[in-house]
Amino acid sequence: MIEFLDIPNYISTVCMESERKVSMAAGPLETIMNPTSISMAGASNNLRKMGTIQLINLIDSGFGGEIMPIHPKESEVLGKKAYRTVSELPYAPDLAILVVPTAVVPGMLEEFGKIGTRHAIIITAGFRETGEKGRELEKRIIEIADAYGIRFLGPNCLGIVNTHLPLNVTVAPILRYGGGFSLASQSGTYIAQSVQFLQRNGIAMGKAISVGNEANITITDCLEYLGEDEHTKAIGLYIEGIRDAGRFLDVARKISRRKPIVAQYVGGTEAGARSGSSHTGAMAGPDYVYDGLFEQAGIIRVSTIEDVYRIGWALATQPPLRGPRIGVLTNSGGPGTGIATTCNASGLEVPEFSPEIQDQVSRYLQGHASARNPVDLTFHIGMEALTIKIPEILFSAPEIDGVIIHGIMDTGFVDLLYPSINKRMPIDHEKFIKFSEIELNELVRMPHDHGKPLLISSFFDESDHTVRVFHEHSIPTFDSPEKAAQAMAALYRHYLIRNRASAAGRRTAGRAVPERAQEIVAGCNPKGMDEYSAKQLLRAYGIPTAEETLAGSREEALDAARRLGYPVAVKACSPSIAHKTEHGLVFLDVNDETALVRAFDAIRAYDADSQVLVAEMIKGKREFMAGVSYFPGFPPCVMFGLGGVFAEAHRDFAIRLAPLTENDADEMIGSIRAKALLGPYRNMEKVDREALADLLVRLGDIALDFPAIKEIDLNPIIITGGAPKVADALMIIG
Amino acid sequence: MIEFLDIPNYISTVCMESERKVSMAAGPLETIMNPTSISMAGASNNLRKMGTIQLINLIDSGFGGEIMPIHPKESEVLGKKAYRTVSELPYAPDLAILVVPTAVVPGMLEEFGKIGTRHAIIITAGFRETGEKGRELEKRIIEIADAYGIRFLGPNCLGIVNTHLPLNVTVAPILRYGGGFSLASQSGTYIAQSVQFLQRNGIAMGKAISVGNEANITITDCLEYLGEDEHTKAIGLYIEGIRDAGRFLDVARKISRRKPIVAQYVGGTEAGARSGSSHTGAMAGPDYVYDGLFEQAGIIRVSTIEDVYRIGWALATQPPLRGPRIGVLTNSGGPGTGIATTCNASGLEVPEFSPEIQDQVSRYLQGHASARNPVDLTFHIGMEALTIKIPEILFSAPEIDGVIIHGIMDTGFVDLLYPSINKRMPIDHEKFIKFSEIELNELVRMPHDHGKPLLISSFFDESDHTVRVFHEHSIPTFDSPEKAAQAMAALYRHYLIRNRASAAGRRTAGRAVPERAQEIVAGCNPKGMDEYSAKQLLRAYGIPTAEETLAGSREEALDAARRLGYPVAVKACSPSIAHKTEHGLVFLDVNDETALVRAFDAIRAYDADSQVLVAEMIKGKREFMAGVSYFPGFPPCVMFGLGGVFAEAHRDFAIRLAPLTENDADEMIGSIRAKALLGPYRNMEKVDREALADLLVRLGDIALDFPAIKEIDLNPIIITGGAPKVADALMIIG
Repeated sequence: MIEFLDIPNYISTVCMESERKVSMAAGPLETIMNPTSISMAGASNNLRKMGTIQLINLIDSGFGGEIMPIHPKESEVLGKKAYRTVSELPYAPDLAILVVPTAVVPGMLEEFGKIGTRHAIIITAGFRETGEKGRELEKRIIEIADAYGIRFLGPNCLGIVNTHLPLNVTVAPILRYGGGFSLASQSGTYIAQSVQFLQRNGIAMGKAISVGNEANITITDCLEYLGEDEHTKAIGLYIEGIRDAGRFLDVARKISRRKPIVAQYVGGTEAGARSGSSHTGAMAGPDYVYDGLFEQAGIIRVSTIEDVYRIGWALATQPPLRGPRIGVLTNSGGPGTGIATTCNASGLEVPEFSPEIQDQVSRYLQGHASARNPVDLTFHIGMEALTIKIPEILFSAPEIDGVIIHGIMDTGFVDLLYPSINKRMPIDHEKFIKFSEIELNELVRMPHDHGKPLLISSFFDESDHTVRVFHEHSIPTFDSPEKAAQAMAALYRHYLIRNRASAAGRRTAGRAVPERAQEIVAGCNPKGMDEYSAKQLLRAYGIPTAEETLAGSREEALDAARRLGYPVAVKACSPSIAHKTEHGLVFLDVNDETALVRAFDAIRAYDADSQVLVAEMIKGKREFMAGVSYFPGFPPCVMFGLGGVFAEAHRDFAIRLAPLTENDADEMIGSIRAKALLGPYRNMEKVDREALADLLVRLGDIALDFPAIKEIDLNPIIITGGAPKVADALMIIG
Repeated sequence: MIEFLDIPNYISTVCMESERKVSMAAGPLETIMNPTSISMAGASNNLRKMGTIQLINLIDSGFGGEIMPIHPKESEVLGKKAYRTVSELPYAPDLAILVVPTAVVPGMLEEFGKIGTRHAIIITAGFRETGEKGRELEKRIIEIADAYGIRFLGPNCLGIVNTHLPLNVTVAPILRYGGGFSLASQSGTYIAQSVQFLQRNGIAMGKAISVGNEANITITDCLEYLGEDEHTKAIGLYIEGIRDAGRFLDVARKISRRKPIVAQYVGGTEAGARSGSSHTGAMAGPDYVYDGLFEQAGIIRVSTIEDVYRIGWALATQPPLRGPRIGVLTNSGGPGTGIATTCNASGLEVPEFSPEIQDQVSRYLQGHASARNPVDLTFHIGMEALTIKIPEILFSAPEIDGVIIHGIMDTGFVDLLYPSINKRMPIDHEKFIKFSEIELNELVRMPHDHGKPLLISSFFDESDHTVRVFHEHSIPTFDSPEKAAQAMAALYRHYLIRNRASAAGRRTAGRAVPERAQEIVAGCNPKGMDEYSAKQLLRAYGIPTAEETLAGSREEALDAARRLGYPVAVKACSPSIAHKTEHGLVFLDVNDETALVRAFDAIRAYDADSQVLVAEMIKGKREFMAGVSYFPGFPPCVMFGLGGVFAEAHRDFAIRLAPLTENDADEMIGSIRAKALLGPYRNMEKVDREALADLLVRLGDIALDFPAIKEIDLNPIIITGGAPKVADALMIIG
């Protein structure tokens, strides 16, 4: 039984004030990731303790700064001079790392504060994630940190890795240094327990941050830091819940235009939310809200941690893809077909090559092989065509933007055959293996020489020499052909994000709250806002709504209808009537005066105080809906989707966080499944997408201007003559 | 450079008739997979040739029967007596294997036929997949086979593996024997090139068949064989296109009720279809057609070959899941949350444990660990709780149907730390590693003792002792937590398939073609079938349609409307008017006689010969559509989905192959995204699903009864009073 894994239980010490050296840095993570001196409390000389393993990894990682352990009894810990208390430290270290029992954390953090240390990593768990008592304790350390200006990671985290410094304070050693892929994670496991997985897959983590409970430094801070970090070429995120979604969006969308971000969000189900809450006390939201956030932020969403790593690695190592056209080269039809179909299904093209390229490729093919794309060399062929000749053609072809190859192998395959061969033709194993090694020097240079990405599919691991060479040269390898295609699709997704319309410069930036809107909200019936007022508020923001009049009498109703022209809609209009359709208080297509009077009387019979709304019948078959919803940790969320009475059945909608840019709104509109309805569709004209986008932008403005509004629901928005017009509006003021 | 992979180019020999021994067997594959004697043409003593490698693998696989190579010059090949020609063989072998040049194949196959061999594997490529000349050659070998009663696999295949016999004629050796997972594949690569992948993942293939061009034995034959094979517990399929979808469906749906089938289909995109066609000349169809086929057949569809293997392996090795409730046990919050959310997202439950179970679990937890489900032991804990104590509780709990564990590890992790530990406390590596090995004997027995599946998530490979033990005991391990959850979801899918309503006993079995229907089709206007006749045909099958009358004059139209009651629909009805809506020849909600006459006159003005259809206006807001479409290799396909003018924008539909059972139809109805519309929905009553299913079953019958009908399109089918009624019908007769 492994005993390293026992709960740490080392030191509970009282600290005193002392000399100190203040570290000045750009941001809190700049210092935490690049300290010149570290004091660690919780390590001892007992190699079976977790804190000790972390200190060992810190020392062995090659960290060049000073390391000062704190230990109540030992004068030396793992060969480093130890200090009995914080106050005995010769100066304030840049960074304090605490792996001490929960109860000891506040006191010790305060001691570090007193001596002038301004950065800490609190690895110790037992805070907010455990319930009320833990929440109190977490509040306490936040107060201490604020009092001393300390910025800290955690609590309940597993530390950091910076292979560029280098520096590693996790429970696992670093096996590969200097990679361009960095990770910020709400799970420490994905920083410290996946080392062998990464090693096997040739992935070198550059920087990795376990954020734990984010009591002080959040995952958004980490994202911001990694966005600025020159060594980080792509960023991975593991997310159980975001608490500052507005800032997260601002930060992410700036980064994603130049540096790819790939993220997994796991809080979007009942069990996922419950689990995350036990884990780091995360506040989760529905999946579709995070879908919207990620889309808006330009974050590539994946659904497994494997994809965070593997797709992140592809994004970090390969030249950007500059178009959707992929050349696929294999020694076998199955993988070629799997790659081709997965490319197509995820938005990439595998175009049939031009006659010129087919001609060039054909020179290296035998009898039945296909040169069309995928190129299928078939199994019976030497490796040179697969590793040099045809790749060179594809990388040089202007008609191809990226290359996927399956079937390169040497020693791994040959080694499978060795026992049988050796039995019949005795041959030295080492020689046999060595002899079979393929030359890949030219191939591994091609992506960078030509500025096009190369991804490899191989059923072999590093026991095959070719896989080792690809890993050495940071060419990603995938153990299933379709995965290589999925990763290429992520590169294409980043291409689209890089090239999308600017996220900056909202038209409504610097705008004022319309006076008329303020009046309407101020004058709102204390019982709530009625439909008429809601539409007036929309109009104050320039949102087109049905023409309508409030009628207090039959005569006023008849007047209104005469003005609007028949048919009209007649509805009860009172904040005290909640479900007017269900109560039969909505009359559509009212064609004449008789019908109008009948409708008016029916409404008054139900509620003698109700006003009666007489509105134009908007002509149009296409019905959309828009609304504003609220989720903890999120700014108001604008929703757009299919409307009408069947909206709930279709569940075809998208979400973006306010404030929206016009481009956000346009992308949201284009992201519904039934987007063909925006088209010219049958005899219906094209929807004025700009007007629809404008409506959504303004809807977000209303929500931001009036936090008292707790819900907005515009359904249906009818397309008439191509333009959107709000036919019904519900606003709830809280 | 590997030279084994050169194109085989050995023998071109003429064969003569000889003595023979006819083999009698249950089905062609029974003999092919279990021959007692094999003759192979195409192997030599040159170890650099592909055919030679295949013979080596055959010999070394442990095959116990007689092996008789054919070679034009050598008297012995790889130590086996060789025969110069087929006619010189001492008797007709059970199985002939041909790896000879393409041009030689027909002659040699005929020679084997002459001596009485009735089973062959033609590995040689260069047939249908290469174009016209190859197609001719393929036709030739089919003719020869038919003439001699030969059943054969291929051409253009990579052979077979039967680890239960054992027998292996592929280019790669077998590394694990006797597994319960078998594969039939339209790609030879997935039989012969993924050996190291399978080995790494602890997967033992039981039987594997590369079907190549399926000129004689099809993948459906293989499926049927594997369905009957007692050693095969789960079946995997790699599919580029099915040519006999009707039979495939019949075979698969019988098997899938007792034995899981997992399949990948790659032909559903433009590039996938093109690639498959170059590869094996496969005839591909749209993705949604295969979705329908797989759903109907009870096949679990996956989208990567990795999932075929890994999910197939889980299905083959684990006891069946008997419900959706999964217990998740981890040493870490991230993987636990990833597993929980993936379970939920794929239809499984991760229920919070009952107080009793939480109580039992809590005894083994330290401070902050959660006992709710997922159980998160947190990192600082001994392994016993993770490997024995808590698993025992979960497996014994009646409230849990299956278990997923993440975080078990020993030597792999310890080995990572060894260099650092050894530096400080020198210790023998072997002892250190050995000491850390965890006891797993109890855990690996639990799934079978309790009849519940266990799946493992681990970032380690077989360099970790626990992974080796799991592999030895056929407990599937997954290198990403979410993948373990996805595999568990496949087990649940199989549970649902096992328990779905019987696929047998169609109500309409043995039914006759209605006489009235025969009359309608026989009397059909030679220009095509008009709407009125189409609906009459539907009525002859008992499908409810709008009440309607054909009117040849204003008076007849007025009479009809009087009988039906206003409002009515008025439409042109002529086989020569194709797009009547686009031409403005459909008048809905015609409210009075004036409007009726206006409509009648407008139609006659457009086409003086057109009949005029006067039909009831069906009242109802919910509009569905149904139809019949045709795809090569498929029986008529019945389609059901959202209808109305927006149907094409929603693209919310499903497909099933005729004949449909009532259960097929009901499942199809329930598989649309907007199934909430079947409701009760708002004020609308529940749709009579039985009536709707009945309509779809009968629609399939029409298509089967009248192959001359080339397309049927019923749109909209309006739900009125809960019941479906066809408002418009289009049938094209070819």
